[in-house]
Amino acid sequence: MRVYLDWNATAPLADAARAATIAAMDVTGNPSSVHAEGRAAKGILERARAQVAEAFGAQGADIVFTSGATEAAALALAGRGLSCAGIEHDAVASWCEASLPVARDGRVTVADPARSALQVANSETGVIQSLPEGLAVCDATQGFGKIPLAFNWMGCDMALVSAHKLGGPKGVGALVLKQGLDVTARIRGGGQEMGRRSGTENLAGIAGFGAAAERAAKMLAEGVWDEVAEKRDYLETLLAEAVGDPIFIGKGGQRLPNTVSLITPGWKGETQVMQMDLAGFAVSAGSACSSGKVRASKVLTSMGFSETEAASALRVSIGPETRKEDLERFARTWSAAFGRWKERSASVAVAR
Amino acid sequence: MRVYLDWNATAPLADAARAATIAAMDVTGNPSSVHAEGRAAKGILERARAQVAEAFGAQGADIVFTSGATEAAALALAGRGLSCAGIEHDAVASWCEASLPVARDGRVTVADPARSALQVANSETGVIQSLPEGLAVCDATQGFGKIPLAFNWMGCDMALVSAHKLGGPKGVGALVLKQGLDVTARIRGGGQEMGRRSGTENLAGIAGFGAAAERAAKMLAEGVWDEVAEKRDYLETLLAEAVGDPIFIGKGGQRLPNTVSLITPGWKGETQVMQMDLAGFAVSAGSACSSGKVRASKVLTSMGFSETEAASALRVSIGPETRKEDLERFARTWSAAFGRWKERSASVAVAR
Repeated sequence: MRVYLDWNATAPLADAARAATIAAMDVTGNPSSVHAEGRAAKGILERARAQVAEAFGAQGADIVFTSGATEAAALALAGRGLSCAGIEHDAVASWCEASLPVARDGRVTVADPARSALQVANSETGVIQSLPEGLAVCDATQGFGKIPLAFNWMGCDMALVSAHKLGGPKGVGALVLKQGLDVTARIRGGGQEMGRRSGTENLAGIAGFGAAAERAAKMLAEGVWDEVAEKRDYLETLLAEAVGDPIFIGKGGQRLPNTVSLITPGWKGETQVMQMDLAGFAVSAGSACSSGKVRASKVLTSMGFSETEAASALRVSIGPETRKEDLERFARTWSAAFGRWKERSASVAVAR
Repeated sequence: MRVYLDWNATAPLADAARAATIAAMDVTGNPSSVHAEGRAAKGILERARAQVAEAFGAQGADIVFTSGATEAAALALAGRGLSCAGIEHDAVASWCEASLPVARDGRVTVADPARSALQVANSETGVIQSLPEGLAVCDATQGFGKIPLAFNWMGCDMALVSAHKLGGPKGVGALVLKQGLDVTARIRGGGQEMGRRSGTENLAGIAGFGAAAERAAKMLAEGVWDEVAEKRDYLETLLAEAVGDPIFIGKGGQRLPNTVSLITPGWKGETQVMQMDLAGFAVSAGSACSSGKVRASKVLTSMGFSETEAASALRVSIGPETRKEDLERFARTWSAAFGRWKERSASVAVAR
């Protein structure tokens, strides 16, 4: 029985999202067609748009559906030369100058909000930023669904969101923008999404996004993520017992309720991921995108950690479905592996 | 009981595609993750890639999955200043200079293939082009799945394909390119799709695309589309009886087996679409994307038809599931409506 502890990479599909996706798959019409079949498809699209707007506190704002937060980032950022910090996801950093200072606790200082992009929360560390008023672009991918957020109160012009981080399907997201603002379309043709993003819409995926967003907002309001935070704290306690002097990134500050980021200097994160995988646990050494590459986390080096420290990070990200007993089992397995590594490295040190 | 006769706008989801999509939805992993869940997702992705390559005769070529043919067009064409004809879909024409001559029969003359984009077949008329050797970009959206095509023999550098035109889900497509060629990524970040198109993949949609492509190739080989062509011819015979002197676009030349394009000068296509919709039939007056706009078909004016003629076009596009009796019912309904319009316009003429 595998245990999935990599919710920040992608969350399991929620039942409500699954049902909505399947129902939309069976609607044949093209949302751009004027006949009844087309109008039925269009109705699904607009319902999902309203669901996402409501869940994200973005009533009245424009929701431009995209193939994910990465495409939304390109739409919001390409050609604008905004500034960002080194802790931003590559989807954002690819279009920005990574010049904003990051403190050791992961917090970013923004000098010129109108010319900057900043994330709500970091995927690797869970550290939550204080968003300055007037921010140009906010990457809300990791925050949406896990912490209370309302676009209309966030004080930023545009935000990026993703479906699969909150229980929706992979490959769907949106750019949310204040009414009156515009972007230059990067995918052109049929003029869908008010001309901002052409192409026949991923109707099934968008329907799943809408349902997932609605459900996520409901769960958040019901306090489900407070329970997740308790489980996260419990896991950290268990891991701390094994390590003695653990370096938990972000602990003590504002952070996501579900993310454990632990540095064990010298024990490579990639090694941990592989060992845990063999033992039946899915965890991560950083963001999923860079996980195939053996390199230190750019997020952690940006925060001032050494290359060795940054290469020795483990991320455990959990969700509402994660059970306490699974965390205990993981903690036992990981602690035993940590003990073996500790012993080995001690004997190597002695041999030297 | 509605009858769907708008397959060129979007085809109904095939059972095999539906099943593959749902199966992939339940695979939690992010294809970029290294653990077992991630590898399972990656496996689905690569299986679909092989299926599309095989079905499109593109073994050994690179398949870059996108959110549809429209995004693939942007990836292939943006910033290159290629030439195309006025009959191309807006997704292609948006990035090209529409300077290539189009004959009355819809065929395009390409002077410089290496600097041109050309479609396999037209979505509105069904007219099939002879692709010149060395073509830069080919829009195979309407051909793939309906007529035998093999990318490796088409003599073009890149091709655009779409899932939902051949029974796959909406919002998935691919750019197919000869090995050794490259494109500048327009969506950047995690480096997915060999760095050509970042962002967590639409895994479920891509799985559905793979299954739909495999099924479409099989059906094509089994001669299913020859039967479609017979049904199409039958429908044209029925419609011709009502009209007397019908103008069927593309008839007599190479064209898709499923598309009827009929001009009834003076009787607006939009009116026909609305009347038929009320009577239970989904048909179109042009491409789905432009169907919301009341304007003459750019495709038909490019072919030399007048504005009046181009605004009086009806497109009926059928598929393997279309039944003969549905076509008979449609022909009766349409012919009666045509008769009423004819009478009205005659009495108006007399009154004048």
